Formats: sequence, structure tokens, C-alpha cells
Amino acid sequence: MSRIAPQSLRAKIMTAEEAAALIGSGDTVGMSGFTGSGYPKAVPLALAARIEAEHAAGRPFRVRVWTGASTGPELDGALAKADGIEFRLPYNSDPIAREKINRGEMDYFDMHLSQVAPMAWQGFLGPLDVAVVEVTAIRPDGMLIPSSSVGNNKTWLDRAGKVILEVNRWQNPALEGMHDIYYGTRLPPHRVPIPLIRPDDRIGEPWLHCDPEKIVAIVETDAPDRNLPFTPPDQTARGIAGHLLEFFRHEVAKGRLPASLLPIQSGVGNIANAVLTGLVDSPFEEMTAYTEVIQDGMLDLLDAGRLRMASATSFSLSPEAAARVNADMTRYRDRMILRPQEISNHPELIRRLGCIAMNGLIEADIYGNVNSTHIMGSRIQNGIGGSGDFARNAYVSVFMTPSTAKGGRISAIVPQASHVDHVTQDVQVIVTEQGLADLRGLSPKQRARVIIENCAHPDYRPLLADYFRRACEGSYGKHSPSLLTEALSWHQRFIDTGSMLP
Amino acid sequence: MSRIAPQSLRAKIMTAEEAAALIGSGDTVGMSGFTGSGYPKAVPLALAARIEAEHAAGRPFRVRVWTGASTGPELDGALAKADGIEFRLPYNSDPIAREKINRGEMDYFDMHLSQVAPMAWQGFLGPLDVAVVEVTAIRPDGMLIPSSSVGNNKTWLDRAGKVILEVNRWQNPALEGMHDIYYGTRLPPHRVPIPLIRPDDRIGEPWLHCDPEKIVAIVETDAPDRNLPFTPPDQTARGIAGHLLEFFRHEVAKGRLPASLLPIQSGVGNIANAVLTGLVDSPFEEMTAYTEVIQDGMLDLLDAGRLRMASATSFSLSPEAAARVNADMTRYRDRMILRPQEISNHPELIRRLGCIAMNGLIEADIYGNVNSTHIMGSRIQNGIGGSGDFARNAYVSVFMTPSTAKGGRISAIVPQASHVDHVTQDVQVIVTEQGLADLRGLSPKQRARVIIENCAHPDYRPLLADYFRRACEGSYGKHSPSLLTEALSWHQRFIDTGSMLP
Repeated sequence: MSRIAPQSLRAKIMTAEEAAALIGSGDTVGMSGFTGSGYPKAVPLALAARIEAEHAAGRPFRVRVWTGASTGPELDGALAKADGIEFRLPYNSDPIAREKINRGEMDYFDMHLSQVAPMAWQGFLGPLDVAVVEVTAIRPDGMLIPSSSVGNNKTWLDRAGKVILEVNRWQNPALEGMHDIYYGTRLPPHRVPIPLIRPDDRIGEPWLHCDPEKIVAIVETDAPDRNLPFTPPDQTARGIAGHLLEFFRHEVAKGRLPASLLPIQSGVGNIANAVLTGLVDSPFEEMTAYTEVIQDGMLDLLDAGRLRMASATSFSLSPEAAARVNADMTRYRDRMILRPQEISNHPELIRRLGCIAMNGLIEADIYGNVNSTHIMGSRIQNGIGGSGDFARNAYVSVFMTPSTAKGGRISAIVPQASHVDHVTQDVQVIVTEQGLADLRGLSPKQRARVIIENCAHPDYRPLLADYFRRACEGSYGKHSPSLLTEALSWHQRFIDTGSMLP
Repeated sequence: MSRIAPQSLRAKIMTAEEAAALIGSGDTVGMSGFTGSGYPKAVPLALAARIEAEHAAGRPFRVRVWTGASTGPELDGALAKADGIEFRLPYNSDPIAREKINRGEMDYFDMHLSQVAPMAWQGFLGPLDVAVVEVTAIRPDGMLIPSSSVGNNKTWLDRAGKVILEVNRWQNPALEGMHDIYYGTRLPPHRVPIPLIRPDDRIGEPWLHCDPEKIVAIVETDAPDRNLPFTPPDQTARGIAGHLLEFFRHEVAKGRLPASLLPIQSGVGNIANAVLTGLVDSPFEEMTAYTEVIQDGMLDLLDAGRLRMASATSFSLSPEAAARVNADMTRYRDRMILRPQEISNHPELIRRLGCIAMNGLIEADIYGNVNSTHIMGSRIQNGIGGSGDFARNAYVSVFMTPSTAKGGRISAIVPQASHVDHVTQDVQVIVTEQGLADLRGLSPKQRARVIIENCAHPDYRPLLADYFRRACEGSYGKHSPSLLTEALSWHQRFIDTGSMLP
């Protein structure tokens, strides 16, 4: 049975190559996709091939690419390899695109994920020429059943001049009903309260609207999402999870957190996944999640009956977990909601719900400034993603990391962060496998002592303590003591010698 | 006629010295006061005298002081001078307290102003032993008529074990009715939407509640707020205002801002005041303000009929403007609302209203990271205040500054910020008297070019351009190019030689 119910739309079915021919050089293209889920799999590949042919013929051809967040090798990888991306927002984890950005060959605008849709509406980013959006199916009434991520699809479909749909037969039709697409956002002065007061509230519709006049092409696909396996939690990850669970138990005992905690947000990656897995054996019941991404650990929590429900904007599952969800979609559908990222990451809602934010970091300094994006201060890793949306507005904002990287040659705790994404006010707890630093209510020097003592690796702890002691003596001001000629010297040493250790 | 209507409370009237004797060493004291308005004027002075006497007798005596924001010399100045403050939050502009903090003799916790009340409720800051709150009068029903600032007074009165009231006869009784005290905040999971959709909405009550059983002392005072004169706008301030007004006109012409703009927020100080004064001669009509502080320029806008109304949490007026307001309070009262700072600075409301945020800065780097708090990276000036609440959630976030300080010996634009309070995502426009940089939608290197070209002072522009050129060649990564050994060298040069110029 066709996934494209309206007869009138079937005339627009064409090959990916034909659809890609409708995209022009210099166009701004809004693509679906969030953490490797729900991105278009055929048109970007065909566009990349076309760009390569144009380049081979000596003709310039590049596009501006907007997405939800990270996509897959068939999108960012292929287009970057073809040197086809002039400008990219708001988040990227593709290694080829990353390399282009860090060689200075691609402009990248790193945004708070909650702000992409409203800023697209504001207009200063320029017009959106084409939307390329993966959906699960098109209903008889023309409504679109969203795919495995929502991201900014509502906004791309509303704003784009032309729409290209990829209807992916691989996505489970039972996804219908899982989504909650809120159509109440406006530009000021017409904004009103968003009527969501619990993570389980449904405030919108299960489908995406799209003006059929704007649909210029429909491409049928049958391809899986970029589902990557998670690494089983190692000792470091289990150590981090253990310290964090102990902290939660302590906060519940003190009466500062309910016994079911508060809605949890978890960043993407192996450490975050390990913490979620750790919660399976925790004493907390009836938990909820209000987060960006549903990953394997979240699924384990649902299956174990610990998590009542999870609200997100996307899946990010291993192949095994994706198969589990697909096999049992109608059951999971009642306990999961996928929303636009403007809503999953909305400051109003994160503050109201009082999320417990848990995000990773690249480095933190002794005062608690966090760098989530720039290696050695200049090389972008992925982007700030939703970490700023959650950390600023959370009830408790946790950042977690192994205390070292690169086999001990990089310390995650440094004298001064080489780039700052999260200011000290937004960083309340730092956890490494060494221990946990509760920074709430502490002055800078109090923070430095607890971070060095609790979080730094023993190889770096004496070096940090020595720096801090000398800074307390020799600094210009002694509120946040620093030695400016040494503050970034660990990073320079790594660049020069391959290690932050002297 | 007494300002203390309930007969039952008159028995609690006592001298400031007697009231101060009810505060113990080690107590946490929540004081009223915001930008020099509505702070207690007698009890802190008496407490300082008591502390000095205790110290002279060889006995330790220090307190922990929480406020709304900055207060006056009779509070922070006197207590700091007596070495009586162990710990201070959330914002300070007192020079004696600042010096203590920067000598490492006082712990200071610099917070987002919107978060003070909710974090006090969360409990990790510890119990609040005493509230010392200035009010205008006590009504027959026991309700308190707030003073010239609201700040965190609702929370201090609700949370404190003991309450000391200062009833200040100097405050105009016609203030009654200007305030809007919202009693709908809760801790999660009990938070609900805040029902404010326009700056003029009143969502609360005009009075503060206080359990009379908790009132341990009432002190009658008759003393003015710390009203300081504003400097008349000089050429630099007029230049900044001119560039910014031109930007607003451009955005209105492009259809990206309504003709009445959007609710404006303005930081405190002479530059901010100059911009407000500049708006008097602008084409914008029916403007509104949703901000922290009503200062002279805001009053001029109201009087000129440009501003329909202003919502804030406090006044910060010159003596002349304070006299103007006092003489005509009943008229102004209809066009001004003072709210708790939790509401004036609430991310939910700032995002919903789409405020135009205008804040000052100490330095910005070529990528648009802003330092609002730390001189040369280590010396605290005042604190982050509400700038983070507004900049992160604004429709347009503007930061403004003269391009140099200290007679040209400090550049406000530097290779790398020595401390970061506002990450690049939250900094959309930078203005100096040299020009305006519209950073929206730009990658780091694009931002660097426009900041150096448009905002830097000509004495520093070639130095910045040279640094940036060499960083683009020699940097580890070329997304946000940097030379780590030079990035903070301008600050070190200032410390060493008294000038950032070579």
C-alpha cells in the first residue's frame, strides 16, 4: 500500500535526482534530521552528486544548510565531501563537515537549539528556499505523519518556498500518534503562555501541516536511520553514574528533590547513556524525562518501569534498540512524545518543569566555567546544541566528564577554560569518575577548592592546586584569581607536545 | 498620622539599635534594596556599629547578606567597612564591599537576578534567619505597602524566621497601587504558566503579605534613597545612541520590528540612560519597557509620551528625577509597575514578550564573547545582574560600550575575553561610538571581521586585525582561530604597564 495516500500528490513522485535538480546553487535548504534520526537519505546524496558534477565542469555550486541538529553521512557527510555546504547551522557531528569547518572552509553558526525556529521566523537569517523533510507517510487528508525526529520540520514546512518530501517506508507507520506538534508559537508581541505543565501533556496535533501547493517533489525511500551502537559502560562511566546517583539520593533525603526526582534531561553519548542505565537500579520510581533525545538508556528505564514517560524531539538509538522500539511501537507510543525542538528545549518549559539537566563537557576550569564546544579553544567539536537551553533553566544543572582524555594527556579540569559555553551561574554540579563537586552557593575560590579536590585527576590535581595557590597570591584581583600568562598554557603545551602534562 | 496602622504592631516599634540586637553572628540576613532604592537605612548602620563594638572587644561577628541587587552606603558600605559580611549575594556595586571581595576577604556569589528567589526556595543556600525590609507603610489589615523597589522582598518575608521592618516616612504614600506582587510562584513540579502577556498586565496584588507573628521589630525612618545624579550624555554616549537608533529604524523598515519596537530593557548607567534619552527624539511611538530599573531616561520617555508604560522592579533615579516622581506620583503610578525581580527578570516572560535587551559590558572579544563582570579576568566589578536573564531570552540582545576605557589605555575589544558572562549565542549586536556590529547569523570569523571593523577604536583596530590574520594562519583549529600565547597578553600588558597598547 502506498504511503502517499492523496492521489493528487502521487503525480509529484520522482527520483531523488529529479528532486535534487529543483535545488539551486546558493539556495538555503532546511533539512529534517536530529541526532541521526529522521533526516532525508536520498535527495542530499543526489544533490551531492550533482554538486560534484557541477564542480567538475568548473561551475560553482554550494548551498546553505539548516537542520534540526546532527544528521547522517548521507546528508552532512556527502554534501561536505562534495564541498557543497557554504554555511551550516545549528549543530553538526559529521566528521567530514567538522574537518571542513576547522580548516576554515565552511562557515558554521552554532546556535541554541531552542532558538533556531524563532530566529528563522525573525527573518534575519534570510529566506528559506527549500525544505527537504523526511516523513513516515502522507495521510488521505494531506497531513504528514512525522518520522523518527521532529526537529525544526514544522518551521521548515511553514517557511520554505518549495517543499521536497522523502517518504521513508523504513519508518514504522505505528509512529502515527506519538508526535505532538504545537502550532501555537508566534512572533512577539503575539506570544502567549505555552500550555504545558507536565512532561506528558499533549498540547498540539499528531501531524505536520503542509500546503500541498508548495510540494514540488516526493521521493520514496526505504533506508534506516544512522543508528550507532553505544559502548557498554566502562569503569569510568560507572564511576560518574555512581557519584551522580549518590547526589540524587542525598538531595531526595534532604527534601530538595521529590522521590520521583524531576523531569530528567540527558545529553547524547556514552556517559549520558551510562547514567541512565545506572538509574535502572536506583530507588527512584515514576520518573519522567523532558529531554531532546530518547536513547538506549531511556528505553531501558521505560522497560524497567522506572520511567513513566519520556518527552523528546528525536530518537537516537542503537540498531538493537531501534529494532526493539519498532517491534513494539504501539506500546512505546503511549509512553513517548516527540515534539518540535522549539518546545522540547523551550526555556519557559524547562524552567517551569524544573528539569534535572545532565550534559557532557570538553573541559571545565577551576571556577566552573564550562567549554562544551571548542577543543584547545579554536577547534569546534559539535556545537552547543541544547545544553545552554537546559543548563540555564534547569532546577539542577549537572555537567559530567571523565577527568582526562587522550589517555591522560588532556585534563578535563584546567586553570582557565579556553572557550566558554556555560558560565559559572549555569554550572551547579560537575562530576568526573573522581568525584562530584556541588558548586551551588559557592564563591569562585570555594568552587576552585572543591573542583580541584573532588573532580581533577590525581595526575593533574597537584598542578591545579599549585596554580590556584600562586594565583591567590599573585592575581590582579582576588575574586577569581588568575595568572594570565599561565591560564591557557596547558592548552598550548598540548598543542606543542601532545600532552598537558609538563 | 502613623504609617503603622495596626495597633497590635505598634508595640514592636523600637530603635534601630534594639532591632540590630536581634540579629546574631553567623545569621543569614535577607535585606531589601535594588539599585540603591528601597534598602533599609537604619538597622544595617546599627548592626555595623554593633559589629565594630564586638570586634573591638575581640569577639568575631559576621553575617551573610542577601539582597535584591545593589543597595547603599548605609548597608553594604557600612557592613563591609565593619568587616561584618562573611558572604554576599547576588549583586554589589558598593566600592568598599568590592574592595573587600577583590582582596579575597569576602565571599561573593554572583547570581542571575531571576534565580535568587527560586534558589532561596530550593533550600541549598541554607535557611534565611532574618529579613530586614523597608516598606512605605503598614495598612490596617497588616498588608505592607512596598517601597521604591520590590526585589526579593516577597521571598525574604515568606522565608525568614524573623522579620524586621523599616517603615520609611520619606517614601511617598502614593506609591500604594504601583506594585504588582505575584504570589503564584511555586517549586516544581507545581509550577504553572505565569499569566502575563503584555508589560502592562497586573497579575498579582499591590501589597506584600507578612505573618505578623514573625515581625520582631519595626523601626521608623525618614531617609532618602541613594539617588545619584546621571552624567549628561557626552559625545561618546550620543554616538552609541545614534548607531543603535539607526539600527532600530533599519529593523522597523525591514519589517523585523514593529513600529512601536518591542518592550525595551535597559541596563543601569550613563550609556544606557543616554540611549533612552536618544529615544525621546526617535520616530517610535507607544513604546513599552519591561526592565529591571526605571531611571531618568525612562522618565523622560514617559513624559515625552513616547513610552506608554514601564514595568520594572525598582527605581534608580537622580535626586531631581526622584523629586519629579514624588511630586506627581499618582499620575506616574498609572504608567509604572514595580514587580518582584523574579518576575521582572523571568526568562519565561522575557522570551514571551520579546524584549529588546540593552546592556553594558566591560569587554567583548573579536568573536563576540562578552565579559560584564571581571576586570582583567580576576577583579569583580559589580556582577552579572540581570544581563544574563535578558540577553539569553531577548528578541534582540544588544551590548554597548565606549570602545576604550581609562583614557584609551584599555580597549573594550580584545583578542579573547579574560572572563565570559555572555556566550556568543547571546550577543547579537555590539555597539561602540565607532559603530555597530550586527552579529546575527554570522560564523565566528565573519563576526571577527565586523567587530574589528565596526566597533574597535582606531588605535586598536590594526592590532586586532593583525592578531586575527595571524590567528587565521597559525591557530590549532580555524573555526574560532586563536593564538593561545597572545590571547590574554593585552590584559597582562595592562597589568604590567598600565596600558593595553604596546
